[in-house]
Amino acid sequence: MSKVNELKERLFDVNALNAATAVLDWDHQCYMPDGGNAARAEHGSRLSRMAHEMFVSEETQRTLSEAAKEANGDSEEAAFVRVVQRQMAISTKLPAEFVARKVKRSTEAHEIWVKARKENNFAHFAPALAEMMDLAREEAEYLGYIDHPYDALTDQYEEGATKKSWEAMFDSVRQPLVDLVREINESPNQPDNSFLTGKWEQEDQRKFTEMLVQAIGFDFERGRQDIAAHPFCTNFSVGDVRLTTRYEDYLGSAIFGSLHEAGHGMYEQGSPMEWDRTALAGGVSLGVHESQSRLWENIVGRSRPFWQHFLPQLQGTFPALSNVNLDHFYRGINKVEPTFIRVEADEVTYNLHIMVRFELECALVSGELKVADLPEAWNEKYNSYLGITPTSDSVGCLQDVHWSAALIGYFPTYSKGNLLSYQIWNALQKDIPNTDELMAKGHFKPILDWLIDKIYRHGSRYQPEVLMEMATGERMNPEHYLKGIRAKYAGVYSL
Amino acid sequence: MSKVNELKERLFDVNALNAATAVLDWDHQCYMPDGGNAARAEHGSRLSRMAHEMFVSEETQRTLSEAAKEANGDSEEAAFVRVVQRQMAISTKLPAEFVARKVKRSTEAHEIWVKARKENNFAHFAPALAEMMDLAREEAEYLGYIDHPYDALTDQYEEGATKKSWEAMFDSVRQPLVDLVREINESPNQPDNSFLTGKWEQEDQRKFTEMLVQAIGFDFERGRQDIAAHPFCTNFSVGDVRLTTRYEDYLGSAIFGSLHEAGHGMYEQGSPMEWDRTALAGGVSLGVHESQSRLWENIVGRSRPFWQHFLPQLQGTFPALSNVNLDHFYRGINKVEPTFIRVEADEVTYNLHIMVRFELECALVSGELKVADLPEAWNEKYNSYLGITPTSDSVGCLQDVHWSAALIGYFPTYSKGNLLSYQIWNALQKDIPNTDELMAKGHFKPILDWLIDKIYRHGSRYQPEVLMEMATGERMNPEHYLKGIRAKYAGVYSL
Repeated sequence: MSKVNELKERLFDVNALNAATAVLDWDHQCYMPDGGNAARAEHGSRLSRMAHEMFVSEETQRTLSEAAKEANGDSEEAAFVRVVQRQMAISTKLPAEFVARKVKRSTEAHEIWVKARKENNFAHFAPALAEMMDLAREEAEYLGYIDHPYDALTDQYEEGATKKSWEAMFDSVRQPLVDLVREINESPNQPDNSFLTGKWEQEDQRKFTEMLVQAIGFDFERGRQDIAAHPFCTNFSVGDVRLTTRYEDYLGSAIFGSLHEAGHGMYEQGSPMEWDRTALAGGVSLGVHESQSRLWENIVGRSRPFWQHFLPQLQGTFPALSNVNLDHFYRGINKVEPTFIRVEADEVTYNLHIMVRFELECALVSGELKVADLPEAWNEKYNSYLGITPTSDSVGCLQDVHWSAALIGYFPTYSKGNLLSYQIWNALQKDIPNTDELMAKGHFKPILDWLIDKIYRHGSRYQPEVLMEMATGERMNPEHYLKGIRAKYAGVYSL
Repeated sequence: MSKVNELKERLFDVNALNAATAVLDWDHQCYMPDGGNAARAEHGSRLSRMAHEMFVSEETQRTLSEAAKEANGDSEEAAFVRVVQRQMAISTKLPAEFVARKVKRSTEAHEIWVKARKENNFAHFAPALAEMMDLAREEAEYLGYIDHPYDALTDQYEEGATKKSWEAMFDSVRQPLVDLVREINESPNQPDNSFLTGKWEQEDQRKFTEMLVQAIGFDFERGRQDIAAHPFCTNFSVGDVRLTTRYEDYLGSAIFGSLHEAGHGMYEQGSPMEWDRTALAGGVSLGVHESQSRLWENIVGRSRPFWQHFLPQLQGTFPALSNVNLDHFYRGINKVEPTFIRVEADEVTYNLHIMVRFELECALVSGELKVADLPEAWNEKYNSYLGITPTSDSVGCLQDVHWSAALIGYFPTYSKGNLLSYQIWNALQKDIPNTDELMAKGHFKPILDWLIDKIYRHGSRYQPEVLMEMATGERMNPEHYLKGIRAKYAGVYSL
């Protein structure tokens, strides 16, 4: 057996443990009764520890070194070895005891956060949040960094990213976005989206969203959709991808939530089957992943031609919408409005929500901001970027799951995804100029096929920036996003 | 740390792997899309191998020996050590290579069986079945036995059971059952159960069965119910017990299937929380487990007072049943009829189905019966015990999953469960003479509390026969069952 294959075989065991952990998480969020909490936390943390120990074992490290000598050039094997080496460099720096403790503490913090948010009680969550920040600092010390502990944390989610690189990204869009939001707010042509709020049958929402994501190309032979309080996408293999969505009074939650998760899901389903259970399968980074969820949710799913095709079906399922014409509908689903909740934000204000979080988590990690002062700092930033002040912590600094789950340095990847989505769409339109026509006919296959060819089928083989250059001819360039939303919202608001 | 605690700590990792495997199986049967099959089989077999390796590792064995010296008398610790020793004695006798091969081959055999049953093609399954029997013989040789290879196999499912002990059990009920079935068949007072077949809304079936199992005491804070093609009960911890049921044209499938699985489920939920994730938690043997599923399904769930309470609610949910009166309903759900399919059998003929399987699997294991001759032998036994001849192998010797899953020696535990259920109920009635009155009021707590006190809270602490003596004052005694069904069916059929 070649050393690369020996490495693969060893890592198949690690993959089995990680896939099992993912199934436990999915079940936890979709089905598990409350009584399962304590044991599930134990099981999850033990499996994570075992996977970590097995991954960083001397035997695996030795096999990896040997495989590295064997794999050369830009072969598939070499890419596989490079991805594993990167994971190994991170993992060997983290003590097994720390990994298990992080899983355990964050699972507990999550439960505390759920209660705190429900009861709008920041003080209840504060000690757990402080502990999460301690863990983040401890983790950064293990991982090492040059400029800022945040660099060590965020690099795990987006290879090569640093506090500085994120700042540069946000600097390039901050003012144009704040200006655009002001212009939009001052426009006399405000769309109405009240028609999207009502009492919609859960079963109708399920059927419609499943029809929708299947129509754009999500394969239900190799995946399914369930309900979760906080929608997410996970997968246990290339052939088993799980979407989640939620059914609320605001019909957009289900529709755009499903399209968003399906974007993630189709990216995962697009990996070559022969890479299944290896480090090469699956999306290359959180930023590129988010570019796909946002592309399908916003650029495709909030376009006029998309609804030219689907509005009649939507009205068939929900007769209360019969009197909403296409223009009214299109403008309604693209209403820009500064609101408190990130996950409900439109695509113009969305990045402002992320900036708030990015700036605050940098300050929390460095200790410049004390946990006790978070609610005030949060509200101030909302006031300054979005012109609104949250009416409670539940719709303020308690709204997101991330910090309670020890995910620090994760938020900026959402913004990167937004920016990349327009860049990728522009490149796609050079090869497929008639996207509007195709979408209006409900013909999404050429679009999906282009994305599979340029992005999905490459899995994690190329580094994110390399992949973007291959797919779009350039590294991340925020201009595409700024021009794209400028053009779109000039239309929606007659600017 | 004491050696017993050190042993517990080591086994918590094994427990995490086994719990994860159980979640993977549950998801496989309830939700997984077909595309997940290949990777799920890999993940499951790798986790099983890891659990086995960790369990039989030198370190675990050494810790177990040391713990055995420490734990003494009839303490909880000593019981824990005894249960682990028994598992260890079995596991260390089986080579890891054999365990992996058995999992792999039986997974393949299962797929072949699914196809063979669907296509009524015994010849397609025969080579796989022959291989399962070879594996069974090989396993028996590893495990060791005095009289018959079957002894080694069946002991794994029911501690202390042997071919001879099962024969003695069946000898004591065979003739009385055959006679009772004949008498019942000849009775002019045949009940009608046609009212249970119709088109019933799935959602109504879900609501009604969930109400029912909650009413008898299944705790939905620590469990849930899902749909599976072949209903089962599994659990991932004492606080997380999963029932499954199915919704069919025959309403009894859902109702009695749910009650049956809830019996298993309440037994699991009744283990002390402080034993969670240890070898002491959970039902002590398959036979005792089945006694609980059958007690709740048949003795409680097919009793007249039970339906005196629930029939009005059933009629409220399913108005098509409005005209069925209590007597008609009670007799209908207790109709005795020799049929081909074990899982649909009534409680009188059920044990005859098991005898057929027991006798045939003993002969297959010993080689007295050749696989090629199984269909004929099967049909002959059905004719002799039940007076009917299967019209095809799909409803004959291909109907059960067990042999394809390498579960040889498992069937007799079902009969033991049936027999014990009446024995336990008789003991319960000595302490609670007014069970009929309680059930007619929908008051199941005293019944459940008695079962928790006498059986459930003891988990696996005592050997099955010891537990039965403690709970009922005697070892297994088939007379209770024979008297019980005689009395019940004399009433139903006016014998």
